Amino acid sequence: MPRSKQNRKVKGVPEATILRLPLYLNRLRALQRAGAEQVSSRELADGLQIKAGQLRHDLHHFGGFSRPGHPYEVDALILRLIEVMKLGHCPYIIAGVGQLGQAIANYTHFDEYGFRLKGLFDVNPRIQGMLVRDIPVRGLLEMDSFIRKEKIEMGVLAVPPSAAQDVVDRMVKAGIRGIWNFAPVELETSPDVVVQEEFLSVSLMALNFKMKSISSGS
Amino acid sequence: MPRSKQNRKVKGVPEATILRLPLYLNRLRALQRAGAEQVSSRELADGLQIKAGQLRHDLHHFGGFSRPGHPYEVDALILRLIEVMKLGHCPYIIAGVGQLGQAIANYTHFDEYGFRLKGLFDVNPRIQGMLVRDIPVRGLLEMDSFIRKEKIEMGVLAVPPSAAQDVVDRMVKAGIRGIWNFAPVELETSPDVVVQEEFLSVSLMALNFKMKSISSGS
Repeated sequence: MPRSKQNRKVKGVPEATILRLPLYLNRLRALQRAGAEQVSSRELADGLQIKAGQLRHDLHHFGGFSRPGHPYEVDALILRLIEVMKLGHCPYIIAGVGQLGQAIANYTHFDEYGFRLKGLFDVNPRIQGMLVRDIPVRGLLEMDSFIRKEKIEMGVLAVPPSAAQDVVDRMVKAGIRGIWNFAPVELETSPDVVVQEEFLSVSLMALNFKMKSISSGS
Repeated sequence: MPRSKQNRKVKGVPEATILRLPLYLNRLRALQRAGAEQVSSRELADGLQIKAGQLRHDLHHFGGFSRPGHPYEVDALILRLIEVMKLGHCPYIIAGVGQLGQAIANYTHFDEYGFRLKGLFDVNPRIQGMLVRDIPVRGLLEMDSFIRKEKIEMGVLAVPPSAAQDVVDRMVKAGIRGIWNFAPVELETSPDVVVQEEFLSVSLMALNFKMKSISSGS
């Protein structure tokens, strides 16, 4: 039976906490843009379906964020989270430059967190040479040497399901250590590779369920 | 301060459980495709970063799934989850038919869960009339009457952030009850509207953090 290899923990920090840190940072950025300088744990947690106590507990793993009874300083907490989350220099490539790959390439909000698109690769010769955000689409055959030369460790997988495993095997062999998988298929990788699944169907099903549960009067 | 309106519970069922049901269904479909007829709670949970006990507890909310000591029947559990999750007839529209909107429109895996793309709307006259999966792109001005006429309750928001709130207000006024938001912006809606945020940056940050935490030796 195929088995996902994504279920690894960061030492000492629960997986669930890790998954909430980006939500905190995302929300803090919105508060910062709106001009907020301080925020209480309650205000920060409120918009995120999270209890304030949970938020304080999560941030406590990384120490030094708060003093009891005082609000968080927005700018300082953002900088600390960027440091804790090891953001700042995160080059990545995209394999598969169809509509989804292009949409990801053009999603400029990644830039503000330090993610830098370095390369685009596709098997289709008709789009090779096309520029997306000034980056040329290269042939998939060039991907391996590009990853090695540019020391890229993160790859976005936006190829068709049938090609996914093959492309991943080549990514990993060339040095990729983290894969964001948009192909609706389970991947086999070695234990030192992190696979972040983006199951879009899962989001849509969750929305449908919540919507119909509310409208049916519960 | 803007506040997300998405933090509502389905009566008696924890939000976290609801968010796991689609993962279970997604995994069961993969097992079904691979030819599995039965699956233990441990096998089902294993690939999903979830404890088997948690999975049994989640499914217990909806009753009648399992007998202690027996595996789940894959086909029967899929049918029951489809029923519980109120899947089967889920028409939806997409507002914003740029690359992201087109990528979503072409993501045919939604179809197998009962989601049916009914309409596409964009403000750009140059793409109006274009066919995506045999559906013509209509002007955004036609959206409101289309929603009313076709009794659509679910809308995907793939417009630029600056246009998002305006489009959402019109969707909701016309009858939309669930919104899948790809615009990286917080939306204000009434309490009876469900907003499912798709913060792509959040996924990318989580991947980056897990990857670097593993490679730095923890």
